[in-house]
Amino acid sequence: MLTGAEIAKHNSSESLWMIINGKAYDLTEFQTNHPGGQKILLKFAGRDATEEYEPIHPPGTIEEALSADKHLGDVDMSTLLPEQKIVEQAVPKSTTAGDAPMTLGACLNLDDIEKAAERLLKPKAWAYYRSAADDERTHNWNRESFYSVRLRPRVLRDVTTVDLSATVLGHTSSLPIYISPAAMGRLAHPDGEKCLARVAAAHQIPYMVSANASVGFEELASQAKEGQILFYQLYVNRDRTKSEDILRRVAKAGYKAICVTVDAPVAGKRERDERAKLDDEAASDPNMQKAVKNTGPDAPDAPQDEPSQGIAQALGSYVDPTLAWHDLEWVRKASGGLPIIVKGIQCADDAALAAKNGAQAIILSNHGGRQLEGAPSSLETLLEIRKFEPWVFKKLEVWCDGGFRRGTDVLKAIALGARCVGIGRPFMYSLVFGDEGVNKVATVLREELAQNARLMGATSMKEVVPAMVNARELEQNVYDGPYESPVRALAKL
Amino acid sequence: MLTGAEIAKHNSSESLWMIINGKAYDLTEFQTNHPGGQKILLKFAGRDATEEYEPIHPPGTIEEALSADKHLGDVDMSTLLPEQKIVEQAVPKSTTAGDAPMTLGACLNLDDIEKAAERLLKPKAWAYYRSAADDERTHNWNRESFYSVRLRPRVLRDVTTVDLSATVLGHTSSLPIYISPAAMGRLAHPDGEKCLARVAAAHQIPYMVSANASVGFEELASQAKEGQILFYQLYVNRDRTKSEDILRRVAKAGYKAICVTVDAPVAGKRERDERAKLDDEAASDPNMQKAVKNTGPDAPDAPQDEPSQGIAQALGSYVDPTLAWHDLEWVRKASGGLPIIVKGIQCADDAALAAKNGAQAIILSNHGGRQLEGAPSSLETLLEIRKFEPWVFKKLEVWCDGGFRRGTDVLKAIALGARCVGIGRPFMYSLVFGDEGVNKVATVLREELAQNARLMGATSMKEVVPAMVNARELEQNVYDGPYESPVRALAKL
Amino acid sequence: MLTGAEIAKHNSSESLWMIINGKAYDLTEFQTNHPGGQKILLKFAGRDATEEYEPIHPPGTIEEALSADKHLGDVDMSTLLPEQKIVEQAVPKSTTAGDAPMTLGACLNLDDIEKAAERLLKPKAWAYYRSAADDERTHNWNRESFYSVRLRPRVLRDVTTVDLSATVLGHTSSLPIYISPAAMGRLAHPDGEKCLARVAAAHQIPYMVSANASVGFEELASQAKEGQILFYQLYVNRDRTKSEDILRRVAKAGYKAICVTVDAPVAGKRERDERAKLDDEAASDPNMQKAVKNTGPDAPDAPQDEPSQGIAQALGSYVDPTLAWHDLEWVRKASGGLPIIVKGIQCADDAALAAKNGAQAIILSNHGGRQLEGAPSSLETLLEIRKFEPWVFKKLEVWCDGGFRRGTDVLKAIALGARCVGIGRPFMYSLVFGDEGVNKVATVLREELAQNARLMGATSMKEVVPAMVNARELEQNVYDGPYESPVRALAKL
Amino acid sequence: MLTGAEIAKHNSSESLWMIINGKAYDLTEFQTNHPGGQKILLKFAGRDATEEYEPIHPPGTIEEALSADKHLGDVDMSTLLPEQKIVEQAVPKSTTAGDAPMTLGACLNLDDIEKAAERLLKPKAWAYYRSAADDERTHNWNRESFYSVRLRPRVLRDVTTVDLSATVLGHTSSLPIYISPAAMGRLAHPDGEKCLARVAAAHQIPYMVSANASVGFEELASQAKEGQILFYQLYVNRDRTKSEDILRRVAKAGYKAICVTVDAPVAGKRERDERAKLDDEAASDPNMQKAVKNTGPDAPDAPQDEPSQGIAQALGSYVDPTLAWHDLEWVRKASGGLPIIVKGIQCADDAALAAKNGAQAIILSNHGGRQLEGAPSSLETLLEIRKFEPWVFKKLEVWCDGGFRRGTDVLKAIALGARCVGIGRPFMYSLVFGDEGVNKVATVLREELAQNARLMGATSMKEVVPAMVNARELEQNVYDGPYESPVRALAKL
Repeated sequence: MLTGAEIAKHNSSESLWMIINGKAYDLTEFQTNHPGGQKILLKFAGRDATEEYEPIHPPGTIEEALSADKHLGDVDMSTLLPEQKIVEQAVPKSTTAGDAPMTLGACLNLDDIEKAAERLLKPKAWAYYRSAADDERTHNWNRESFYSVRLRPRVLRDVTTVDLSATVLGHTSSLPIYISPAAMGRLAHPDGEKCLARVAAAHQIPYMVSANASVGFEELASQAKEGQILFYQLYVNRDRTKSEDILRRVAKAGYKAICVTVDAPVAGKRERDERAKLDDEAASDPNMQKAVKNTGPDAPDAPQDEPSQGIAQALGSYVDPTLAWHDLEWVRKASGGLPIIVKGIQCADDAALAAKNGAQAIILSNHGGRQLEGAPSSLETLLEIRKFEPWVFKKLEVWCDGGFRRGTDVLKAIALGARCVGIGRPFMYSLVFGDEGVNKVATVLREELAQNARLMGATSMKEVVPAMVNARELEQNVYDGPYESPVRALAKL
Repeated sequence: MLTGAEIAKHNSSESLWMIINGKAYDLTEFQTNHPGGQKILLKFAGRDATEEYEPIHPPGTIEEALSADKHLGDVDMSTLLPEQKIVEQAVPKSTTAGDAPMTLGACLNLDDIEKAAERLLKPKAWAYYRSAADDERTHNWNRESFYSVRLRPRVLRDVTTVDLSATVLGHTSSLPIYISPAAMGRLAHPDGEKCLARVAAAHQIPYMVSANASVGFEELASQAKEGQILFYQLYVNRDRTKSEDILRRVAKAGYKAICVTVDAPVAGKRERDERAKLDDEAASDPNMQKAVKNTGPDAPDAPQDEPSQGIAQALGSYVDPTLAWHDLEWVRKASGGLPIIVKGIQCADDAALAAKNGAQAIILSNHGGRQLEGAPSSLETLLEIRKFEPWVFKKLEVWCDGGFRRGTDVLKAIALGARCVGIGRPFMYSLVFGDEGVNKVATVLREELAQNARLMGATSMKEVVPAMVNARELEQNVYDGPYESPVRALAKL
Repeated sequence: MLTGAEIAKHNSSESLWMIINGKAYDLTEFQTNHPGGQKILLKFAGRDATEEYEPIHPPGTIEEALSADKHLGDVDMSTLLPEQKIVEQAVPKSTTAGDAPMTLGACLNLDDIEKAAERLLKPKAWAYYRSAADDERTHNWNRESFYSVRLRPRVLRDVTTVDLSATVLGHTSSLPIYISPAAMGRLAHPDGEKCLARVAAAHQIPYMVSANASVGFEELASQAKEGQILFYQLYVNRDRTKSEDILRRVAKAGYKAICVTVDAPVAGKRERDERAKLDDEAASDPNMQKAVKNTGPDAPDAPQDEPSQGIAQALGSYVDPTLAWHDLEWVRKASGGLPIIVKGIQCADDAALAAKNGAQAIILSNHGGRQLEGAPSSLETLLEIRKFEPWVFKKLEVWCDGGFRRGTDVLKAIALGARCVGIGRPFMYSLVFGDEGVNKVATVLREELAQNARLMGATSMKEVVPAMVNARELEQNVYDGPYESPVRALAKL
Repeated sequence: MLTGAEIAKHNSSESLWMIINGKAYDLTEFQTNHPGGQKILLKFAGRDATEEYEPIHPPGTIEEALSADKHLGDVDMSTLLPEQKIVEQAVPKSTTAGDAPMTLGACLNLDDIEKAAERLLKPKAWAYYRSAADDERTHNWNRESFYSVRLRPRVLRDVTTVDLSATVLGHTSSLPIYISPAAMGRLAHPDGEKCLARVAAAHQIPYMVSANASVGFEELASQAKEGQILFYQLYVNRDRTKSEDILRRVAKAGYKAICVTVDAPVAGKRERDERAKLDDEAASDPNMQKAVKNTGPDAPDAPQDEPSQGIAQALGSYVDPTLAWHDLEWVRKASGGLPIIVKGIQCADDAALAAKNGAQAIILSNHGGRQLEGAPSSLETLLEIRKFEPWVFKKLEVWCDGGFRRGTDVLKAIALGARCVGIGRPFMYSLVFGDEGVNKVATVLREELAQNARLMGATSMKEVVPAMVNARELEQNVYDGPYESPVRALAKL
């Protein structure tokens, strides 16, 4: 048994030991390969990092990452020095959700669940889930862009029954909705993404597992129900062989399609996330903020491992920025021929290129406003494709995400040509209530969709046609500059 | 004489007794037929429900609903146990109307009356009257849509006298205004809808009685003045024979027309109403909110009898969702040939279908923003009909409602082709002051209309023509997608 | 000498005496002819009304209105009973201008002066000056409509000197600005309108005297400087002979033109003004608000002499609502041929009619937003005339008023074709500082205009041309419905 | 050694002595030539003005301005009377930035630095830097105008490396950014503009030195790094020989181009700046505000040396308002042929004239909203030039400034044709942290630009093309009135 005193000596980059779940590991060699950066490892060097490590890594992560000789064995936890224990962050939280519901029963809609989560989540978890790029205007615009679309409901139609199901890549979903990939579910609940998988199964809707899920994708698949629809969201690794390995395992685990995320070659600037990190650091070391280094033109232009780096940046550091259209074929082959979904299309040109390059589906998305401030909402991109490349809707399935919170939001996208809609943050927020919370989100959406479809006079998603919405206010601002179809251009070659 | 102790035993679905106005009734068999749901009955099982029952049921409701053998007779009210008495809800109310006028004399306009009502009504009554769908954006938009329409007043015209009268289905109303159907008047005043009927008579304007009025439609008709114009608003019952029975009685009672409400095949999601209910329940049973049931894809998709059900959902549960255009003929026949008004038209297509199907009048309405969030305001639908189906104005009368609060609001709709305008919530709010309140609303509207017409240079409603308004801002957002007239389509068959 | 006790007996409509400036008058016969209504006289019957009377009547008003036998003579003021003395209103004022400047030196612009006035004026005076129709949206829109017009400044022009003068009806004004007619100057300062006249003379700008000025128009003219430009604003009296008498006297007094106000055949609904009155009455008689009378369809439709009547309605009660276009000729003749300015034009049609009917100038105005909520701003009407009746600018002078507060506001109107601009409320507010305040308003405008013109690259008002502004945002909302020129229509006859 | 008592006697315009840095000067003759006005000199007459003088004058200013006989020699500072010492202003500051970051490390973006500056700067310095014209709507609009432009990002492009450099007048800048000319850097930091020069050198971006810099332009040039790009911003003096002298020295000092500021022939009305001055004066002399002088039509129309004059007006008083297009040639000659940048172009007409008159670059600018309220944002002018005079982009370089705060702001201007973008206030605010602050601004911009370019799919500024932005919302409000190209007009002569 190792003692706290022994481990405490290895607290620098020269010799870097750490305790996780009662066992010690030697991270000295590994430290520069850590996807989340070296800095965070140094912070916990020589200490027990379990509480910080646990909610953001799938089980087995460290065991797999380190060769057996780096497993140092059990630690006598009674011998830990006080300073080796990580004191749980307890920054008092001031929220804008002072009168938010605190019980699930008091939540009537997805906004209520967001407000409850703001009060109940740990500040860093809230910051990671909620944060968006820069001033969060795009995050807010995603939501607001629905408001200017007016419905054109039809009356005196028999709406006794309404069929909410949608066919998604050949699979039947009971709703035109899937769970969007989002990382770090265990920040909110010990079961993390398992809750999402279980409720998706119960509701017979697809769940797209995040590459950064805090539960392993194979573990999730192993617990899937018969016939459950799981998709895998891929961030292509700078080391392509690692991605190929993952894709093989994903296919073997029974995932139905690969989603290639293309709007995040580098991480967005999520200042809310960064500030939460800063607050945390400031609490432990008030002198820390003084350092300012000159990063003139000769310095690398990407943000470095600096104090202000939030969870998001740490996660994104392994992403391959060279990824290009021809790589879709590589993904397909590596996955053994699974259908490809391209996530993050933001203009008509790229929708056409995705069709040209054989994608089975595209997701119009600006990553929940988390990447590029000023990107269009998915409704806007939908209208742009309708204007410039309408044939795309016949070649592949068009999915949408970003800011969907109400049944009518979903129906507006369906009316304008979307096949289905991804819901992300609300499901992550609902994790604070475990399975019941996740189920509540799905149930509220189901009820709202059924009610709204009836009030629109539609008894199935096929009846939700373009003439059921008046999107003229948005249409008037659709891009109107010079446009040359990249597909026609390619055709000329 | 029955005693409290005896009645207290019958407090479950197996044997369900209740006290109303000093008499006991056996509701065991009836409980599953209750239009307001079974749950609320169980809440008051074995207790005195008078205070809850009284303001939301017309007199005689329970007597008619139950056969004589379920009338259990008088109760010795002195023997009631403390827990059998319903303690009046006394939740402290926080309103946004802190400095609202508290006397009728201090109310200068309809908004003042709304603010006064917010302070003076019981919370549940306020929530029921005021609530609207989802985030209440459509409710607010109804009002705001007036602001973008600018007037084009004419000067140097002799405006000594101004004739405000309108011809409505052949009847003369002293104002281009009628009282919209709204339920549950007795939540605000013991006389309830009787106040509305009396003041409508005094002002010689039509009153459209709600199917859910808390005073019986026959009682209201029996007290009508000679020549008073009463319309009856019908919600078609799943059990059509019940509706046929009502229509016969309505015709016999002297109603002048039947208004078929078509925008509410299911109830809207009125969260303010649901929250008021929740607050009430939370007060009596703090454990109640814990229950969350899985309502996956196999569960019925309509909201169930859950804790969050407000007054609105309870009321709407008997409405027939199969109602279709051909049923208008059935209504006409069942009423002995009364004129048909179709309430809830929200697009040009349906305006044309209403004309085709023989309606005498349509009401452009989104149900006060209480049904489908995202529905157009009546001004928008007016402009859409002017654009796509202008012939409709010659075939039938076009009425409007939703958000009208000022004389100029009414004149804008008249200028764009409306025959008259329905006022709903303001009259319901005014009930808190009884007849005097209702009269104040009518008087304020009369004065504003006369003043505004003069300032526009119009001496009668006929002079309020399209060129008197500049609606270009709204016109620019009128639907501009593909449009095929359903009437032309029908004609091809 | 009369005693208080004697006068106190005559405190009803049957015998109505009143004390003004130490003298008693018998108003029993006169009471029904009082332009401000009978009610206010009854309120002060048998009492000393000096403090209420003084600031809102020109000197000599009561002496002229009553024949000699109604002059009852001097009162021994030491004998007045306490209840005969009017206690000065001292309602504590809560303003939105908490940190407003309290000295003239701290006022940098016209808004500062408004804020200072809100703090320094008596509540009733503030309410009368500031009030506007209904919800005051038109009042606010007047101001806001300037913001959407962008300037197109030119650089590298020699702007050493700039000529701000304008030719107005053949007279030279040192600024393209005149003082708009506004009533009741003595509510703010004992010298009232005399301050306006003196400063207008010093600045060599026109002053348009209100028909309801609290200083007599002849007294104002008698103190005019050599060559001073005074216009007279006429409200045509129901008794035309009274107006003819006034017009004769106006011409004789040297006024240069008659301004016929055409947008106020009845008074607007100025709720802020009415509420100030209510507050005042509530303070003196808490029971007063209880009365609500039934004003059904047989009641006259104009607002009656009710508790809620503010100063504005009292002033407007003598105005002739039959006034029509052909009356312009009558005005001209009665004034001995003075030029006619028509104030209150709100659409292109009426601009054309004014030109047709021989007006020398029109004022595009919605009466400062005080009359019809929803009326266009003067910039909007300017654009409408440019679109439909551009020839009007050659036939007569087009003036504007409503919401002008900054030099750039004035220059925007000039660029779009206005000859000059009327400033009303800011001058009234500035009266709280007397001559110095009025001078400050004129000086600030002069300085801003000179500076703004230079920064636009204009050295005279003639160089402020349409191409110097970008009004496209407003232009896109100019009326676009059917338009038939009334002049062409007349020409066909 | 002079004593305090002796100097104290010379405290009026008849004999005006002052102490600066321990030496006394006789300003009696000079007082009327002081560019900042005579008044401020009188305020400090007979006293030690060092603390006021120091931060707003380049070293050597007074020594050069006065002939040797006015240098009175050293003062025995121990003999100063208390009233001769200027007590540092300590007005308590109420800011809107209550929770602003107080350390540089906590600043994540340029707005954070602005908020920090609001808390850390002296009130007068903050007011001078931050103030803008009139109601600051144009200042705010500059910023807001970016928000309506949506990006059209492209995905699946290899963005491993991104080249942010731009070629500016033949020089290579490491970023498409330069430091805009702004005055009075020593109000924030003792080193003042030296910090800007040093960091510009480190980051290899151009620095445009303000004519009113508080460090002499020759001193700045003497410390420049090899190859550093310095431009000189000229305000042409009423006395042209002074400007010619400066231009000769500027060329000799190695400046690379002359920027002629053309949007400030007179100073703007910066009320925030004026109020800060007022507050200061009010503190020292409460009676000061009483004086109001009549400034009627015969008074000069430009604001006089009044109490309300802020720093900005004092600075601008020597500017020549006769400057015209033909003077560009004079500037070029006087500078020995340096390239000419014309700063302050606000419409397409003037862009064409600048090209016609041989400018090498123009800066679309409204002077940070500090001059003419209502002027267009630089994005608007960019779109106007694209519409009316697109050939201009080929003739000269188009630069922009005003409200740029985020990487995406810069990229939007680049996409629409701008060569580079000036950043002003953020650099001034950052001076409160010295070199580290200035470096932080440059570093944040560099990081945001690199990240944003990658997320847009652009690897160099040349790939940031018009089709990468959707500016339709702004385009719809571009000037659409009559337009005649001034160049075509000139060509006809």
